[in-house]
Amino acid sequence: MSAFDYDLFVIGGGSGGVRSGRLAAALGKKVAIAEEFRYGGTCVIRGCVPKKLYVYASQFAEHFEDAAGFGWTVGESRFDWAKLVAAKEQEIARLEGLYRKGLANAGAEILDTRAELAGPNTVKLLASGKTVTAERIVIAVGGHPSPHDALPGHELCITSNEAFDLPALPESILIAGGGYIAVEFANIFHGLGVKTTLIYRGKEILSRFDQDMRRGLHAAMEEKGIRILCEDIIQSVSADADGRRVATTMKHGEIVADQVMLALGRMPNTNGLGLEAAGVRTNELGAIIVDAFSRTSTPGIYALGDVTDRVQLTPVAIHEAMCFIETEYKNNPTSPDHDLIATAVFSQPEIGTVGITEEEAARKFQEIEVYRAEFRPMKATLSGRKEKTIMKLVVNAADRKVVGAHILGHDAGEMAQLLGISLRAGCTKDDFDRTMAVHPTAAEELVTMYQPSYRVRNGERVG
Amino acid sequence: MSAFDYDLFVIGGGSGGVRSGRLAAALGKKVAIAEEFRYGGTCVIRGCVPKKLYVYASQFAEHFEDAAGFGWTVGESRFDWAKLVAAKEQEIARLEGLYRKGLANAGAEILDTRAELAGPNTVKLLASGKTVTAERIVIAVGGHPSPHDALPGHELCITSNEAFDLPALPESILIAGGGYIAVEFANIFHGLGVKTTLIYRGKEILSRFDQDMRRGLHAAMEEKGIRILCEDIIQSVSADADGRRVATTMKHGEIVADQVMLALGRMPNTNGLGLEAAGVRTNELGAIIVDAFSRTSTPGIYALGDVTDRVQLTPVAIHEAMCFIETEYKNNPTSPDHDLIATAVFSQPEIGTVGITEEEAARKFQEIEVYRAEFRPMKATLSGRKEKTIMKLVVNAADRKVVGAHILGHDAGEMAQLLGISLRAGCTKDDFDRTMAVHPTAAEELVTMYQPSYRVRNGERVG
Repeated sequence: MSAFDYDLFVIGGGSGGVRSGRLAAALGKKVAIAEEFRYGGTCVIRGCVPKKLYVYASQFAEHFEDAAGFGWTVGESRFDWAKLVAAKEQEIARLEGLYRKGLANAGAEILDTRAELAGPNTVKLLASGKTVTAERIVIAVGGHPSPHDALPGHELCITSNEAFDLPALPESILIAGGGYIAVEFANIFHGLGVKTTLIYRGKEILSRFDQDMRRGLHAAMEEKGIRILCEDIIQSVSADADGRRVATTMKHGEIVADQVMLALGRMPNTNGLGLEAAGVRTNELGAIIVDAFSRTSTPGIYALGDVTDRVQLTPVAIHEAMCFIETEYKNNPTSPDHDLIATAVFSQPEIGTVGITEEEAARKFQEIEVYRAEFRPMKATLSGRKEKTIMKLVVNAADRKVVGAHILGHDAGEMAQLLGISLRAGCTKDDFDRTMAVHPTAAEELVTMYQPSYRVRNGERVG
Repeated sequence: MSAFDYDLFVIGGGSGGVRSGRLAAALGKKVAIAEEFRYGGTCVIRGCVPKKLYVYASQFAEHFEDAAGFGWTVGESRFDWAKLVAAKEQEIARLEGLYRKGLANAGAEILDTRAELAGPNTVKLLASGKTVTAERIVIAVGGHPSPHDALPGHELCITSNEAFDLPALPESILIAGGGYIAVEFANIFHGLGVKTTLIYRGKEILSRFDQDMRRGLHAAMEEKGIRILCEDIIQSVSADADGRRVATTMKHGEIVADQVMLALGRMPNTNGLGLEAAGVRTNELGAIIVDAFSRTSTPGIYALGDVTDRVQLTPVAIHEAMCFIETEYKNNPTSPDHDLIATAVFSQPEIGTVGITEEEAARKFQEIEVYRAEFRPMKATLSGRKEKTIMKLVVNAADRKVVGAHILGHDAGEMAQLLGISLRAGCTKDDFDRTMAVHPTAAEELVTMYQPSYRVRNGERVG
C-alpha cells in the first residue's frame, strides 16, 4: 500500500493536465485531477477551439460577397452575436463533457476545486479545505492574458478571455498587440463587421515570423479595411460619457472605440499556487523552471504546458504530458522534443509555418536558397477578391535540406501540418522537386518552384 | 543550316505541348506549335480549371446554409448559370492568352490550325494545306470523352465537353459513369440545385481508389441528396415530347432527366492524325505507344500526355514534356517517373490520395498496419452539417514506410499534395509520429494516430 493518498495528483484540467491524468489512470494509477474553472483549459474554453469557431463565423461575409462572381445573388444578411456565443458555448460544453468523460472512464477522480501546493507531495483542496498527498504531482495550470496593470485604465479593457463572451458585439474595437492572438481577433472582429484598429509597438506585426508573412498579412489586413498602427502604443484608456473607451496613443492621438482589447502577452498562473511552500522554483516571469523531463526543482513535482513557458501550444502540452507518462510510468525516459514545431496563425489569410525564417537561416547557414511564389488563389479569379497567396521555401544550399516553409493563404495551417512531416524527416528540396504536382491546388506551387528566386550568401542577397 | 523547316514541331496546344514548345523555343530552337481548337488544352479549356471554378460555384449553397449555425441569417439566394458560364469563359480566355503569350515570348511560332502527320519529319497544316518539315515532332493532342457510340440514343447525350457550356442549367441530370469526372460533375450539378442521379455499372464508384474513400464518398453524396445507382447501366436514351431525355436502365426502369451526361472514359485523339503515314504505332485503344523517353516507333516523333494513355493528368503531361526537353535538348536523358503520383478528386467532400490502397498493400506486403480516423470536421459542429472526414494511412510493417495515404474531406487535395512529398521521400510512420500537431487542424489527425486501427497479415485482418 502506498504511503500517499494518490499516485498522481494533477493540478489543472487543461490539455496537459487532462492527458497526463487520463493516461496515468488508464495505466491503473490512482489519480486525482483538480480544476477550479472548467475542464478543457485555455484551448477548449477560451483559446484554440472558440477562436477557430469564431474564425469560421467571421468568414461568411466574404463567402456572401464572393458568391456574386460565381453567378449567385444573395439576399441581405444579418449577424447575431448572441447566437454565435450560445452556439460556441454549447460546443465547448460538449467538449468539456468529453474531457470529463475521458478522465472518468480511465478511472481518474475529478475534483472541481482550486488546488494549491501545501508542500512536497501535498496538495490543499480549496473547496473542502482538505489536504491530500500524492507520490507525484503534475502542475499544469496554464496561463492567462497579461492584464497590463501598468496601463492607466487597463481595468476598462478586455482580454481574449472576455472577448468570446462580450454581452454585445462592439461597433468598433481597438486591439493592442502584434502577436497571433491580437492578429486573429482583429480579423475575427473585422469579419463580423466591427470597425477594427490594431495598435502595436513593434515595427511590424508577428515578430519572429518570416518577414514575407509579416508584411504579406499586414498588407492583406489593410486591404480588407483593418487599420494597423505600428510603432505606437496606448498610453491610457478612459471611458467617455456614452460608455465608450477613449484610448490615448503616443502617435495617433485619441482613438475612441466601444472596446479596447489587450493582447499583450500571457503570464503563467503561478500566483498563490503554494510553489514556495513546496520549494518549486520559478523564473523571473513567474514560469515554473523544469528540466528536460518536465521535473521541477522539487522531487516528485512536475510541470507541463503553458505554466512552464516553453512553447505555449496545445499539442506541445499534450506531447509533454505523454513524455511524462513514458518517463515516469513506462520506464521509458522520454524528453519532450521542441524542435521543428509547425504552427498556424488563424488570421485571414492564414499563416502556416514550420522551421526557421529566411533571416534566421541566412544567419545560420553560409548560403541559402529562397524559393518564393506569390499568386492569386484560383477562387479569387472569379470572386474578384484582391488577395495573394505567398509561399516560401528556405533551403540550406550545402545539404539541400528545406529548413523553413512559410505560407500565407487559404488552408496554410493544414499545409504547415503536413510540411512539418517533411521537414522533421529532413527532406531536401530534391524530394520536393521529385514530387508530382496535384492540379489544380495551391500547394502544387510548393513542388514546382524549380529555380530559386534568390540566394543569400554570407548574409548578402545574391542572384 | 538545318535541313528542316523547324527544329521542333508540336502538334497540340495543351499542357504537354505548350510546355515542350515553350521550353524548346526558350533554348533557341526553331519551334512551331499547332492547335486546332483553343490553346490551353483539356486542362484549361474543358477540364481541371473550369471544373474547379464550377466546384467553387457549387459550394456556395452550403456556405449559405452553414452560416445559420454561426449566427447568420441570409436572405434568399438565386443562381444564374449564364453568369457563371460567362465568368468562366472570361477566365479561361485569360489563361489561354497567357499560354499564347508564354509561347510567343519564348519565340515559338503559334499556328491556329489542325496539323496532321504526313510522314516522318513531315506535318501537314490543314488551314493552309501547307506541308512543313521538322527535325523532331511532338504529338500532344490529348484525348476526348468517349461518345459511347454503342449506346442507342448516345447522340442525345452530353459529355464533360458540353457540360461546361450548356445553354441552360438543367433541372435534372442523369450522369453515367463512376470515375472521377462523373463524380465531380454529379457534385457540381447537385450543388447548383440540379436533381442529380449517378448510374454506374460497377459495384462501387471510383474503382481503384481505397475502399474507405469509395464507400465514404458514396455515403456522403447520398446524404446530400444525390441518387446513386450502382451495378446498373443505361440501355438506351430517347427524347420525350417535351424534349427531355428518357433513359432506359437495366434495373431501375426509365429515368427521365433534362440531360444525360456520359462520363464513360476518355479516348486518345489519334483518329485521322496521319500516324500510319508516319509509321507511328498505337495500342488497341488508339493510344500512341511510347518508350521510357516518350519516343514513338518512328525516330524523331515523340508523344506526350493523354494521347499516350500513361497517366492522364496535367502535371504528368508537363513532367513528360520537361523530361523530353532534358533528354533531347539538354543532353540529360531523363525518363518520366510515374511512381507515387498524388491525386485529388474534387468531389464534395474531396478525396486526396497518394500511394497504394489498403487492398493493394495487403496483397503486396506480408503485414501492413492501417491507421484510420473518422471524425466530424470542426466547422460542422456549429453548422450542423452531417459530414465525416476520413483519414487513413497504410504502413508496411516490415520497414514502417507509409505506402498509402487517403483522405476524404475538406482540403484533401491540398493535403495529398504535401503528403506526396513525404511518401516520395520514403518517410516512415515514425516520421509522422515525431511531428508535432498543429491545432486545431484536420491534418493533425495524420500525425496523432499512434496506434494502428488494425493490421492485415498475409491478407487477413487481425487485431
